[in-house]
Amino acid sequence: MVGGGPGAGIGETHRIAMRLDDRYELVAGAFSRDHEKSLAAGRQFGISVDRVYPDYATMAERERERDDRIDTVVIVTPTDKHYEVAKAFAETGINIICDKPLCLSLREARELKALADKTKIIFCLTHNYSGYAMVRHAGRMVRDGQLGEVRVIQAEHASGWAIKLLEKEGHKQAAWRTDPNLSGDASVLYDLGTHAHQLARFITGLEVSEVAAELSHIVQGRAIKDNANLLLRFTNGARGTLWASMAAVGNEHGLAIRVYGERGSLAWRHEDPQHLQYFPIDAAPQILAQGADWLSSEARRWTRAGLGHPEGFFEAFANLYTELADALLARSQGRAWKRTDLSFPDINDGVHGIAFVECAMHSYAAGGAWTKIGSI
Amino acid sequence: MVGGGPGAGIGETHRIAMRLDDRYELVAGAFSRDHEKSLAAGRQFGISVDRVYPDYATMAERERERDDRIDTVVIVTPTDKHYEVAKAFAETGINIICDKPLCLSLREARELKALADKTKIIFCLTHNYSGYAMVRHAGRMVRDGQLGEVRVIQAEHASGWAIKLLEKEGHKQAAWRTDPNLSGDASVLYDLGTHAHQLARFITGLEVSEVAAELSHIVQGRAIKDNANLLLRFTNGARGTLWASMAAVGNEHGLAIRVYGERGSLAWRHEDPQHLQYFPIDAAPQILAQGADWLSSEARRWTRAGLGHPEGFFEAFANLYTELADALLARSQGRAWKRTDLSFPDINDGVHGIAFVECAMHSYAAGGAWTKIGSI
Amino acid sequence: MVGGGPGAGIGETHRIAMRLDDRYELVAGAFSRDHEKSLAAGRQFGISVDRVYPDYATMAERERERDDRIDTVVIVTPTDKHYEVAKAFAETGINIICDKPLCLSLREARELKALADKTKIIFCLTHNYSGYAMVRHAGRMVRDGQLGEVRVIQAEHASGWAIKLLEKEGHKQAAWRTDPNLSGDASVLYDLGTHAHQLARFITGLEVSEVAAELSHIVQGRAIKDNANLLLRFTNGARGTLWASMAAVGNEHGLAIRVYGERGSLAWRHEDPQHLQYFPIDAAPQILAQGADWLSSEARRWTRAGLGHPEGFFEAFANLYTELADALLARSQGRAWKRTDLSFPDINDGVHGIAFVECAMHSYAAGGAWTKIGSI
Amino acid sequence: MVGGGPGAGIGETHRIAMRLDDRYELVAGAFSRDHEKSLAAGRQFGISVDRVYPDYATMAERERERDDRIDTVVIVTPTDKHYEVAKAFAETGINIICDKPLCLSLREARELKALADKTKIIFCLTHNYSGYAMVRHAGRMVRDGQLGEVRVIQAEHASGWAIKLLEKEGHKQAAWRTDPNLSGDASVLYDLGTHAHQLARFITGLEVSEVAAELSHIVQGRAIKDNANLLLRFTNGARGTLWASMAAVGNEHGLAIRVYGERGSLAWRHEDPQHLQYFPIDAAPQILAQGADWLSSEARRWTRAGLGHPEGFFEAFANLYTELADALLARSQGRAWKRTDLSFPDINDGVHGIAFVECAMHSYAAGGAWTKIGSI
Repeated sequence: MVGGGPGAGIGETHRIAMRLDDRYELVAGAFSRDHEKSLAAGRQFGISVDRVYPDYATMAERERERDDRIDTVVIVTPTDKHYEVAKAFAETGINIICDKPLCLSLREARELKALADKTKIIFCLTHNYSGYAMVRHAGRMVRDGQLGEVRVIQAEHASGWAIKLLEKEGHKQAAWRTDPNLSGDASVLYDLGTHAHQLARFITGLEVSEVAAELSHIVQGRAIKDNANLLLRFTNGARGTLWASMAAVGNEHGLAIRVYGERGSLAWRHEDPQHLQYFPIDAAPQILAQGADWLSSEARRWTRAGLGHPEGFFEAFANLYTELADALLARSQGRAWKRTDLSFPDINDGVHGIAFVECAMHSYAAGGAWTKIGSI
Repeated sequence: MVGGGPGAGIGETHRIAMRLDDRYELVAGAFSRDHEKSLAAGRQFGISVDRVYPDYATMAERERERDDRIDTVVIVTPTDKHYEVAKAFAETGINIICDKPLCLSLREARELKALADKTKIIFCLTHNYSGYAMVRHAGRMVRDGQLGEVRVIQAEHASGWAIKLLEKEGHKQAAWRTDPNLSGDASVLYDLGTHAHQLARFITGLEVSEVAAELSHIVQGRAIKDNANLLLRFTNGARGTLWASMAAVGNEHGLAIRVYGERGSLAWRHEDPQHLQYFPIDAAPQILAQGADWLSSEARRWTRAGLGHPEGFFEAFANLYTELADALLARSQGRAWKRTDLSFPDINDGVHGIAFVECAMHSYAAGGAWTKIGSI
Repeated sequence: MVGGGPGAGIGETHRIAMRLDDRYELVAGAFSRDHEKSLAAGRQFGISVDRVYPDYATMAERERERDDRIDTVVIVTPTDKHYEVAKAFAETGINIICDKPLCLSLREARELKALADKTKIIFCLTHNYSGYAMVRHAGRMVRDGQLGEVRVIQAEHASGWAIKLLEKEGHKQAAWRTDPNLSGDASVLYDLGTHAHQLARFITGLEVSEVAAELSHIVQGRAIKDNANLLLRFTNGARGTLWASMAAVGNEHGLAIRVYGERGSLAWRHEDPQHLQYFPIDAAPQILAQGADWLSSEARRWTRAGLGHPEGFFEAFANLYTELADALLARSQGRAWKRTDLSFPDINDGVHGIAFVECAMHSYAAGGAWTKIGSI
Repeated sequence: MVGGGPGAGIGETHRIAMRLDDRYELVAGAFSRDHEKSLAAGRQFGISVDRVYPDYATMAERERERDDRIDTVVIVTPTDKHYEVAKAFAETGINIICDKPLCLSLREARELKALADKTKIIFCLTHNYSGYAMVRHAGRMVRDGQLGEVRVIQAEHASGWAIKLLEKEGHKQAAWRTDPNLSGDASVLYDLGTHAHQLARFITGLEVSEVAAELSHIVQGRAIKDNANLLLRFTNGARGTLWASMAAVGNEHGLAIRVYGERGSLAWRHEDPQHLQYFPIDAAPQILAQGADWLSSEARRWTRAGLGHPEGFFEAFANLYTELADALLARSQGRAWKRTDLSFPDINDGVHGIAFVECAMHSYAAGGAWTKIGSI
């Protein structure tokens, strides 16, 4: 693990996800740029002192040399370090689990993808909402044609977490997420917009082809824009909107999606992840519940305790980890492992996400003009 | 009443709204262009045969001459007739209740407004959702500062009523609403978009200043576009989106609004009109229920039966009628009657609505460019 | 109309219900025991002065003598007067609409039933919740076997209206509803319990056969018990509970029912009356919405405006009135009119309701022992 | 761990709960009565072969002799073995985590309690719903007086899991849960009723003092009664009902509770565990969400990821484990550890639960007569 020392919420989330299904062992790390802190973290996690490294570069180099080298590295640093860390490990041929977004520029994203393709590593990008059983089921329903052709997609990740000027109150995460030097006004899109974008792509199997973007300020005094409203065009002609916000007061985490097709529609909200609403054109709306007998194999595969036993954020995260463990195991045993379009997100999803953000920022800079993904 | 013969749902809605609080008597009408049908309707409604007119022009002329002339005319024809009918009655000085949208062009809308201003008639435009007690309460809360400055408005009127090609199955209302000769692709905005637009204005007291619009097709084979996604800028700098659709499969009537301010937010859905969700910045979210003791006078004024006794579509419609009756009575008794910004919608709302639609259509024609209201 | 002078909420509710579908004319009344008040009410309602009567007895006598006598009388006095007023009009052969509960003793209820049977009047008891379209649909589903044999019924009418000692604050309705001289501790069952009881019977077509009752105090200082929890046995062996309360703090009106069968279940709440949840044994739960195309004729018959246009308390009340109007018209035209088991509640429902309350009070007096309906 | 071999859902649940916060190591077990299966399980769990025991008695004896003996044993056998296994380990002074219900007779329960008291072991009974952050918060609110005196409690654990005759289709869990030889008709109360009973006690701090019980059949052909409706009296005079069912078709897991006091009420449902509804007497209803800033320390202590990140069944289970780990650690370090009335359930809760079930069965046998807890 690179990053994720004690106190870093996302590191602990990844560690819980690892442990949940007991498929991983944490054996090495560079948990902090402060080596003392890193060593302390290593002790806490029960890691041999010789595998607690002063920095990621040393870790990549030394692990490469070991016979019992790590199978996969987990990258949970702040986003601006993802590129260099991922690059270092990709070059050693070590598989990668990287928190989202992949990085902060399309150029870097493409470079990482080329490298990953060349070294044939497995690269899992933790767009964790793809791990929910009912999100998988939604993806299956669309692919099975239960909605007919998709026509409208309304996606949002509008959180209320930063409605106050937390960055001026010593809130570390708020500080880097609103630092204009890291990614300018794009932070709200990198941090939240990419989740909504990936969720829409994952469920529908469609790509966004064009974007028209508007950014705005909610919290006065903030150094960056904290709200984004986008119009979307998809590859099949479907239209939609995407709303990303870090200051939608009163919202909890605020990730939600509605997909409307010619024959039916779906609605899913992260606040109630074990239910999926399905509206067929010719019958009454249905509430599909995780654990119900009649769900798809994709939903059943990622359900542990059954109907009426809520599984949430950590279980969805763990699902990605466990799915990756299956892939790593298959590969280590020389068995074939094939991604499907409902597998865990990978580096391609990362590239798409970064392209989407850059494209939206181009549109905004151009007064909201429709901008083609791929044109930049 | 002009229009609204038997079988016309909107006519019956207006008649129920009239009767509910027993403040009106229906005494004259030109219910159909077919005089025989009109006479039959008159008999059914118990109207004296000499006040069932062959057409609206005759009705306006003859009623003007009567000492017991009607206090107000109700216009419930298809939209393309609103302008001429309203004009005829406005010229006689008879007050008007007109179904929305006001008409189909900004030029006509402005002409009607000038005429109404000149003749000093009271002109009620039945954007009926403004009649809901909890919508009134929402408007009061915003004006009282409970949300702080409004920053984001997400409005939608995305109905699923026309997900099938009803216009090819003999469905009369679908036929005229999807007829490209009446208003081209703008129909979905005139019919549904204006409701969402007016609701946003009514609750927040803000005006839309700029629009960027995208229209699209959901139902293949339909002669007009049946879906519209808009980005909005408001006069105070707030941003938002507006989604109007007639083919959002699975949606019921689909009118909903969320208003986010600096200090709190509100959410209201027409499917559950007696509840308003309120999210203050520093306390737990609240469910405000119609009939609760602690609501504003605006909410209490429009509540008949109290907590837990749902009032719906007809009661909201009746609220506008009853509020207008108060105004008419005051005026007839020589008492002052003053509109407030939470009174029933009037011709100004009509002009704003038509300007909004025309502006959105300009934006769409210009490839989705931001277009200023008032620039056209 | 007997009772229901200005200020009496229930009188105004009945008048709105009459007007809504325009099938009634209010032409006579004894609105108050104070003749001056009654005359004032008559003037307000536009009633000829010679048909505003000093008391119900005079009204019954004089109306009987008129050629244009009233078709039906509406009884909206406090409950303790229902018996004598209903008796007076039944003896004249005038049809009756009576607010619930029918009366305050089983002896009186049976006497009224005998009289109504003898005089062949139509007697409508306004258990108004039976008027909701989705309640009708629920009844149809049970009768069509969509739930299989009913096994458990969970009914409640637990309102929060009297959680404070309103009777000591000059609240008139609270005063008579908590007056131990009127019906002792049974008030909460007469007022609210009979609604839940009737709703259960109406939807399932089953009768309660045995009751075990527990009453208790919520509000200290109240002269009567304000809470009742009952166990039920039904004629087919189904079991259930019924909770009636006037002091369930935080509840709105609090009427709700769940019916569980061998093949499916249903849930309906008065706070959201236009939706009915249906849980089939072998498929996903469904949300049945008023106005949907695929509903039963019973639901469609009582829907005015269609999907997504909420109809509430007054419309449900009006449904009973309009259904009765159909019956009265048929009879006056010499056509057959047949009740079905999904028609408006009548005097038999009234007798069942009073028997139920008396039986529950016997059980409570006997320490909660199971008590057979019909045994008392 | 005793019991919980591969395939036993509850064993895996306990193991996930152990791992989630990384406070436990599974080092010994007797996972199955079939030693081969047990050894296979041990290999899967990475346990040294010399600590995989042929039976619980051997395990208790051998572990007692080890210096590195287990800190605590987890008992996840079928209920009828709980008593003997718990007894064996209690006698060795090894702490115990035991799945609920404690055992199948009050005599055995009292014996275990006496033994636990004597040996001073820590005994955690996994009434896992007590582990939810919002259940803890509910308990805090009641104790802080936010509801005033509690007057009515409506609790239910009515699951739909066994609406079919699963026991005749080779469903192992259904087979033992409906075996009349194990606990007769009491199974539905032992399995589900005790959860609702414990939840009511945990949140309110009140004890049930008297019960009146009715049992019934939902599924025809089942060997035991699968439905129970109870009336309750609590120590402070509050009343309530408890519904336990294994065949409430359409219900998910069906655990829910509503608590009504003199000054407010609370509602919590296991299907949406991260929200608690609060209805104060003098203000609007509130939705309290896990992770909100203003929650009690009890809620914050058991929240990992914060607002809008759902935690569910496994996290609640893990909360009990982690709380117990704190206790075990404190004790092992010689620090004081004090239970509070919002700590994990222990053997006293087990005794209360068994007494409750036996008392309810007495009541049922006595025709539903009110029966005092403690009288049997």
